[in-house]
Amino acid sequence: MRKVAIIGIGMTKFGNLWERDLVSLAVEAGAKACKDAGVDKDKIQAIYGGTMSGGLFVSQEHIGALLADYSGLKNIPSTRVEAACASGGLALRQAYLDIASGMHDLVVAGGVEKMTDIGGGAATNTLATAASQEWEAVQGATFPGLYAMIAKLHMKRYGTTERQMALCAVKNHKNALNNPNAQFRRQITVEGVMKSTRIADPVKLFDCSPISDGAASVVLASEKAAEKFSKNPVWIKASGHATDTLSLHDREDITTLKATVEAAKQAYSQANLKPADIDCVEVHDCFTIAEICAIEDLGFCKKGEGGKFVEKGNTKINGKIPVNTSGGLKAKGHPIGASGIAQAIEAVLQLRRHAKGRQVDTEYAMTHNVGGTGATAVVHIFGREK
Amino acid sequence: MRKVAIIGIGMTKFGNLWERDLVSLAVEAGAKACKDAGVDKDKIQAIYGGTMSGGLFVSQEHIGALLADYSGLKNIPSTRVEAACASGGLALRQAYLDIASGMHDLVVAGGVEKMTDIGGGAATNTLATAASQEWEAVQGATFPGLYAMIAKLHMKRYGTTERQMALCAVKNHKNALNNPNAQFRRQITVEGVMKSTRIADPVKLFDCSPISDGAASVVLASEKAAEKFSKNPVWIKASGHATDTLSLHDREDITTLKATVEAAKQAYSQANLKPADIDCVEVHDCFTIAEICAIEDLGFCKKGEGGKFVEKGNTKINGKIPVNTSGGLKAKGHPIGASGIAQAIEAVLQLRRHAKGRQVDTEYAMTHNVGGTGATAVVHIFGREK
Repeated sequence: MRKVAIIGIGMTKFGNLWERDLVSLAVEAGAKACKDAGVDKDKIQAIYGGTMSGGLFVSQEHIGALLADYSGLKNIPSTRVEAACASGGLALRQAYLDIASGMHDLVVAGGVEKMTDIGGGAATNTLATAASQEWEAVQGATFPGLYAMIAKLHMKRYGTTERQMALCAVKNHKNALNNPNAQFRRQITVEGVMKSTRIADPVKLFDCSPISDGAASVVLASEKAAEKFSKNPVWIKASGHATDTLSLHDREDITTLKATVEAAKQAYSQANLKPADIDCVEVHDCFTIAEICAIEDLGFCKKGEGGKFVEKGNTKINGKIPVNTSGGLKAKGHPIGASGIAQAIEAVLQLRRHAKGRQVDTEYAMTHNVGGTGATAVVHIFGREK
Repeated sequence: MRKVAIIGIGMTKFGNLWERDLVSLAVEAGAKACKDAGVDKDKIQAIYGGTMSGGLFVSQEHIGALLADYSGLKNIPSTRVEAACASGGLALRQAYLDIASGMHDLVVAGGVEKMTDIGGGAATNTLATAASQEWEAVQGATFPGLYAMIAKLHMKRYGTTERQMALCAVKNHKNALNNPNAQFRRQITVEGVMKSTRIADPVKLFDCSPISDGAASVVLASEKAAEKFSKNPVWIKASGHATDTLSLHDREDITTLKATVEAAKQAYSQANLKPADIDCVEVHDCFTIAEICAIEDLGFCKKGEGGKFVEKGNTKINGKIPVNTSGGLKAKGHPIGASGIAQAIEAVLQLRRHAKGRQVDTEYAMTHNVGGTGATAVVHIFGREK
């Protein structure tokens, strides 16, 4: 496989962007990424775009072609990929495979979602199409309820506490104070999380990532193109991707996201690295319990010890393995299709030493993007050396 | 790039399959493709699935993971790609790039759509999400109307007649008589087409492809895996993909699908072939005028001469370039996400000499899959030699 680097990054602010539409967000992010790469947009040879549900959120499918059209890049191949909340991570992976195959040398991978054009209830129902319609959504299950079941069992089996979960949210809000693109840039407290509205016991409002609008893009390059255009390329050392049952009831153990375990195994093997080699990680904290499961399933601590691991401060900026320095989905925001790409942008900022106010001494950064309750997981590892 | 072959094919019958659901169709096609390849399903390393709008047709997104789950292939990477009616062709392309990159050796590319679970009006509105919401669908434009505009200008500028368009439908119905999986296996006549209900002048009911349920799958293999498992591999000689403006009003000339021209240019160049080298072609005849535009834009005749070219019998089974030997979208049926893969299956059948009753002496076969009114086009060339 040919080596592939990220040479440009760009994203919009994440949040309730009521005055913006899906396309303008995506075009803004793409243009910023090209500018950052120092690459004229006409040199871009292909686009991969991740978006979860153009059909239900904005009545628009065929978004690959739309992005090429409105970016003024008519006629180049442009492909939409979808895996619910992992759509962005998968767009990155497809762009990586495209260049690795030798088909193209300069490719944009982007992600976008415009979630606030429909009401909150309709958005929750749209998100529920990432779960099994037949076994889960039709029974009224939505994601807070599904993750609440995971949390309940994690608490019962391993003694994980609501305060430990709350600490994830508090840390992520603290990190977001230094991220100008984050949706929430205000500190919250453990007491504030504990007192917030109970959505689906034990999941409270401040355990949940928000509904957001936003877009993020990266420019990927082959070795030759990276050497030509970039002084600080960030190399994709590994791309892992795995699936699991769509429904929770079909799994042996709902506290372990087997897709995460499997995708991480692929990624560590490809990069020839182990968890201790990773200097910072963006995990998919759609709910705080998801962050705790993720640090266990990615191998940063043993299964069941995630709550205590967080409590001891290991996941803080100055901890053993800084988690979600960007603010994570919780505080940076979670425009579904964009999240996987925004994670990669944080990895690039850390590796470039451009993560102002939240910089970690990083040789290897990891991203972990999940669809649904873990039916899809995509894990990438990035490094400074080829 | 590594060489890639198709070593297994499988599809469901296309039609109004009211007793079936999306997943069972996809699993049936995938299982048939594995059986045809002589490959145990547990050897499959990744899946690419094309589907247009799981969200609007069956309230189910995240279909990649769903397909892996219900195929009993838990944990392998599975990716949904979407480009409206070109979703299947793009799934094939992504599977091709995956193997070409060196990531995997045995990959399934599939396509599926379940369109009849919602009413005809709702289906037409869902299909309209492949057009521009902002400029076309919001004005009430749906696809028969958009293709009617293309037909009107083609008639005015080049003298193309309604009878010439009707001949495409008549030929495709004749070819479908020999395709056991086709939705419509009955002969129609030019007079019958001319007398059929006018949908959007000059497009009549029998100029339109139907609303269909169905699925199709192929097993792709690297050179090594093809040699191990297959006695009659069909090689992917080229994969072209291009885009155009989503809206017709943004194009210089709506009678030319520039994305088709561009994707074909890529494909001919990659395969080092010219139109005269192609022995049979499956084109995207969502409407009969689309078949006429396609044979022009793919280079089988000059722009504007498609109608006469058809009238002279050049596109019949025994003609200069047999077009849609499978029955095409018109008679085989058009379950959106499946169509691009079903086209590839026809190419494989022709190259294997297994196209009973409709066999053409074929060394090179081409497929042409279009999204919307041509905002996406995917062109593949297949051959018997590596």
